[in-house]
Amino acid sequence: MIDLRSDTVTKPSDEMREKMLTALVGDDVYGEDPTVNELETYAAQLFGKEAALFVTSGTQGNQAAILSYTQPGQEIIMDNESHVFLYEGAATSAFAGVQSRTLAHRRGQIAIDDIEAAVRGEDIHFPETSLIWLENSHNRSGGSILPLTYIKEVYQLARSYHVPVHIDGARIFNASVASNIAIKEYAAYANSIQFCLSKGLGAPVGSVLVGDKAFIDRARKKRKMLGGGLRQAGVIAAPGLLALKSNVDRLTEDHENAKRLAKAIEQYTALKVVNKVETNIILVETSASENSSQEWLQIFKAKGILAVAFAPTVIRFTTHLDISKEDIDEVISTLKNL
Amino acid sequence: MIDLRSDTVTKPSDEMREKMLTALVGDDVYGEDPTVNELETYAAQLFGKEAALFVTSGTQGNQAAILSYTQPGQEIIMDNESHVFLYEGAATSAFAGVQSRTLAHRRGQIAIDDIEAAVRGEDIHFPETSLIWLENSHNRSGGSILPLTYIKEVYQLARSYHVPVHIDGARIFNASVASNIAIKEYAAYANSIQFCLSKGLGAPVGSVLVGDKAFIDRARKKRKMLGGGLRQAGVIAAPGLLALKSNVDRLTEDHENAKRLAKAIEQYTALKVVNKVETNIILVETSASENSSQEWLQIFKAKGILAVAFAPTVIRFTTHLDISKEDIDEVISTLKNL
Amino acid sequence: MIDLRSDTVTKPSDEMREKMLTALVGDDVYGEDPTVNELETYAAQLFGKEAALFVTSGTQGNQAAILSYTQPGQEIIMDNESHVFLYEGAATSAFAGVQSRTLAHRRGQIAIDDIEAAVRGEDIHFPETSLIWLENSHNRSGGSILPLTYIKEVYQLARSYHVPVHIDGARIFNASVASNIAIKEYAAYANSIQFCLSKGLGAPVGSVLVGDKAFIDRARKKRKMLGGGLRQAGVIAAPGLLALKSNVDRLTEDHENAKRLAKAIEQYTALKVVNKVETNIILVETSASENSSQEWLQIFKAKGILAVAFAPTVIRFTTHLDISKEDIDEVISTLKNL
Amino acid sequence: MIDLRSDTVTKPSDEMREKMLTALVGDDVYGEDPTVNELETYAAQLFGKEAALFVTSGTQGNQAAILSYTQPGQEIIMDNESHVFLYEGAATSAFAGVQSRTLAHRRGQIAIDDIEAAVRGEDIHFPETSLIWLENSHNRSGGSILPLTYIKEVYQLARSYHVPVHIDGARIFNASVASNIAIKEYAAYANSIQFCLSKGLGAPVGSVLVGDKAFIDRARKKRKMLGGGLRQAGVIAAPGLLALKSNVDRLTEDHENAKRLAKAIEQYTALKVVNKVETNIILVETSASENSSQEWLQIFKAKGILAVAFAPTVIRFTTHLDISKEDIDEVISTLKNL
Repeated sequence: MIDLRSDTVTKPSDEMREKMLTALVGDDVYGEDPTVNELETYAAQLFGKEAALFVTSGTQGNQAAILSYTQPGQEIIMDNESHVFLYEGAATSAFAGVQSRTLAHRRGQIAIDDIEAAVRGEDIHFPETSLIWLENSHNRSGGSILPLTYIKEVYQLARSYHVPVHIDGARIFNASVASNIAIKEYAAYANSIQFCLSKGLGAPVGSVLVGDKAFIDRARKKRKMLGGGLRQAGVIAAPGLLALKSNVDRLTEDHENAKRLAKAIEQYTALKVVNKVETNIILVETSASENSSQEWLQIFKAKGILAVAFAPTVIRFTTHLDISKEDIDEVISTLKNL
Repeated sequence: MIDLRSDTVTKPSDEMREKMLTALVGDDVYGEDPTVNELETYAAQLFGKEAALFVTSGTQGNQAAILSYTQPGQEIIMDNESHVFLYEGAATSAFAGVQSRTLAHRRGQIAIDDIEAAVRGEDIHFPETSLIWLENSHNRSGGSILPLTYIKEVYQLARSYHVPVHIDGARIFNASVASNIAIKEYAAYANSIQFCLSKGLGAPVGSVLVGDKAFIDRARKKRKMLGGGLRQAGVIAAPGLLALKSNVDRLTEDHENAKRLAKAIEQYTALKVVNKVETNIILVETSASENSSQEWLQIFKAKGILAVAFAPTVIRFTTHLDISKEDIDEVISTLKNL
Repeated sequence: MIDLRSDTVTKPSDEMREKMLTALVGDDVYGEDPTVNELETYAAQLFGKEAALFVTSGTQGNQAAILSYTQPGQEIIMDNESHVFLYEGAATSAFAGVQSRTLAHRRGQIAIDDIEAAVRGEDIHFPETSLIWLENSHNRSGGSILPLTYIKEVYQLARSYHVPVHIDGARIFNASVASNIAIKEYAAYANSIQFCLSKGLGAPVGSVLVGDKAFIDRARKKRKMLGGGLRQAGVIAAPGLLALKSNVDRLTEDHENAKRLAKAIEQYTALKVVNKVETNIILVETSASENSSQEWLQIFKAKGILAVAFAPTVIRFTTHLDISKEDIDEVISTLKNL
Repeated sequence: MIDLRSDTVTKPSDEMREKMLTALVGDDVYGEDPTVNELETYAAQLFGKEAALFVTSGTQGNQAAILSYTQPGQEIIMDNESHVFLYEGAATSAFAGVQSRTLAHRRGQIAIDDIEAAVRGEDIHFPETSLIWLENSHNRSGGSILPLTYIKEVYQLARSYHVPVHIDGARIFNASVASNIAIKEYAAYANSIQFCLSKGLGAPVGSVLVGDKAFIDRARKKRKMLGGGLRQAGVIAAPGLLALKSNVDRLTEDHENAKRLAKAIEQYTALKVVNKVETNIILVETSASENSSQEWLQIFKAKGILAVAFAPTVIRFTTHLDISKEDIDEVISTLKNL
């Protein structure tokens, strides 16, 4: 099977497994796991932030951030297709008691004027705006990249209203590598970023939250409440650290694979690629073809290719560490023969 | 001053005051206030529902409904300018832990397809859709009326997904009178409705929630948690009951006043009426004129007329029980002379 | 019926009704109700606090206070029979997300050492202690009075830990009158107090929260979220203000009535009064008698006397404004003849 | 250093590390991790329950259970020193909105009558009792074991009120081994149990929740909201499974070590052991000695022995997998020479 469902399906490499075998560990609830500490220090430096926190998932990183910035009865401005709104079980409202002010967007970008219009003034009827949320790259737009100039504008607007900015950077390294913008550049225009070790970077488990020290201290306590206080966490931080050190630059391959695959889809099938393939995600519209999305997924599966439904008439393909150039050749060859 | 800021500013009439003087009362927490019981029975019958609950405000009625239908981590589908989303302090998320899935609308109507697309399927990432929310008349659209056919369609869709429908009917009597559709007709296509006694109907305090008995029983307990369990509440239920019995039909006057005023605004000023004036609300765009909204509010105030800012370049005028035909004549005369 | 179930059952006097008839009113959501403003100003001055907020019930006042002091994941220290813990539908946890650290008490007083031991230190496992809660008079102890010296000690301890103190003073005027301690004295040793107009003072509806201005500003917003933002609230604030001005000193009569009734119960029945009757509440143990509590309630009811079950073998009698000396004579005479 | 602070400090053995190296893995969010599935199946069978869920910590297992059983405004009956109340950051209230009804206990056992008295009846003022909570072994009592007869009684009472029972069994294997009661026996009298792989069993990370299928399905969704949906979780489930299979019976050694150490403390020091040492925990009172708890911890540390403060005058020692008989000999020898 060539599994293009998500970049979360990658399996740990032998090197990562070796790291688990040898990692120095301690009780991380006591702050004594040297490998976790090394990962957190490394991540903080990489992003140019004061501190970092190892969490078990992007959802946990995002929710710990929200719990650290907000109080119940406040509001977060975000695009109406953000992961945190669509795919985190409404935890933002359930746990933090916070309302999501979801705005229309284009490729992950809400118009600056719309953001400003949505910032709440002082009124007894209004929730306070306590956070502005960006997602980079933006999953629902097919891995589209937020331009640095856009992020800067949002950040400056946010600062003028004394509201922090968080970036859900589950795939921020894809954005960074594809746009050739250093990760620190992005981080300079956000108060905090969450990024995943277990997506493009290929680690088995984990994400990291970076920000200033006071924020990370609060988030550490919130992580404990979420059940994310682990003991000898070094055994999973170790492959995560390796992933972060070794697997960033190679994301270019995933992007090339995605572009090549997208071209072939357009060339050889009745399917239409609907996103500009900037990173590792391809969105394919099935409505103009004779088959439904579910039928297409079955057709591909029968040929040894896995993808996922993304909307009633949209299928998503995602390239990643476990998909080689040769795998893509094979998929293309299959497409030709459909 | 001719106060056109809101229909909430009406003062209780002498008759209402008399009702307070003579109302039979008891301890309503024990269910022993005869006047409250009479109001609840009357309201339930009027709407063709099993039961009703007297609450102290529209917000309390709406929130008690949400708390009775939902659990944390669920989602309510509503239009993105609904009162419950914009003006209730994010209580939906803060108290009920529920996420508001806010969709684009036209005059309070979300496209049926958009509603259906927003109903969540079964997936570990997804909140469950547990309520569909309508607002009739729709305040942010300038008191526009939801067509009965539209409400029916929403209700049928909702039923097919086993999701209840709640109508925020703070001004449902304005809709009913203006459209000549009986209140029971609207209620037939909703599981519950909240309506206000203290807006167009002119009572000093209170709203009522109607629905089936099991729902109202739950809502009664939630009302207690919200601090809405009152003692000798009959003293305010009495004028409310009078308002409900006496002040519905006369809403026509408010609507005529609003239409007449809207025409005069267009005729005599540089301001543009931007809503179709279907009920008692006029929305006026100021951006084409030489003055800002705030300046216009000052100009009007200096002439003895009060209105409110509704958006950066929009002013709202609202007619009501305490605004007579003569008051409108006077406002029109003022407009002529501006 | 001589209704001794609760001091909440009092019906508004003719004078109170007159006040409703004549009260100046306005839209209190806009801060324009002169009678509400007068009540709030009067209450603030009476307690020696900066500001006050009219709420519709003791529960609403208590919950608005909690929402104004705390954040989710924090802890309130209180006695394990406090009203807020037993009788407010767990709103403290449901709405504020706050844990109640309930400690053993004697007549409403938790040992100072126990309070200090319960204040949480800094630890990633711990909620932060954000409020200390007292109830005066203490309902579950039978209206017992917290000594001023005790309140002072708690307040000083709380200050040393930078934790505010709130007093649930639903019946604080009973405590004040019975102990001859000015209400300002109590208020000097608490950051905020909630007191009820609708219990001993006899108003039909309402309570008041007093505290410093910043606190009351926050509480006003929380009250709106709870649905307690009322329109022409002056119609109920007016009898409340009258009650506050006129009905405090006469609470002595209720206390005398209670003492006299308690004595008669001990003298003429097999029932045992288990509280020291300091204010207007009598707790009666039924287990030593031949009848169960429910049977006793039936026996009394058959004789025209209402009381309430307070625990499996305890009945509560409460004296109040609508119970005259003659009513008590009649009850005593009935007891003699049982 | 001989680290007796907690049984959470154990480091993964070489065998466990090997398991990480070779574990079959997949994306557990998709349910495709064979090792996680194996662990969950094994755990369910071991406890005689329908299903199991791998979580990252005891806190996450406990909170997922609470979120699956309760709704905001309900109440859980538990002892007033339970871990979930003292050490989980008030997540029960913050996330689930649930009130903890904490009752006095003796060695983890609340009197059955007290539990029954605390179950709430139907009343508009009352939260509903939705869960009864036990902890076995009971940490704050020094690892004391709940007798099976007691658990049965609680379970039967709970059933009679249609309330489920959850056991926080973070150290239930200690209880099982020490009392010679099969784990299935305990599980037969509880609706669900959470147990830790990372305490006495010595795994680096993780806990497991067992219960019926519908409950575990709900808990799986709640785990996702908590950020506990992991990807290739098999890498940590593998050592967990090994721990569960290999390290249960050997807990006897920890218990013997604890007993031997306790005896030596009494014999050779001014310290007093205050718990009956039934499992792997020793609680030592320092108040009768010349040194404070903090001084004692320093004295021990200087001699290469780590323990933790457990109360102002109490120190806790915990034996575990990484403490050998020889380590205990050495500690005893140190104590002799103090």
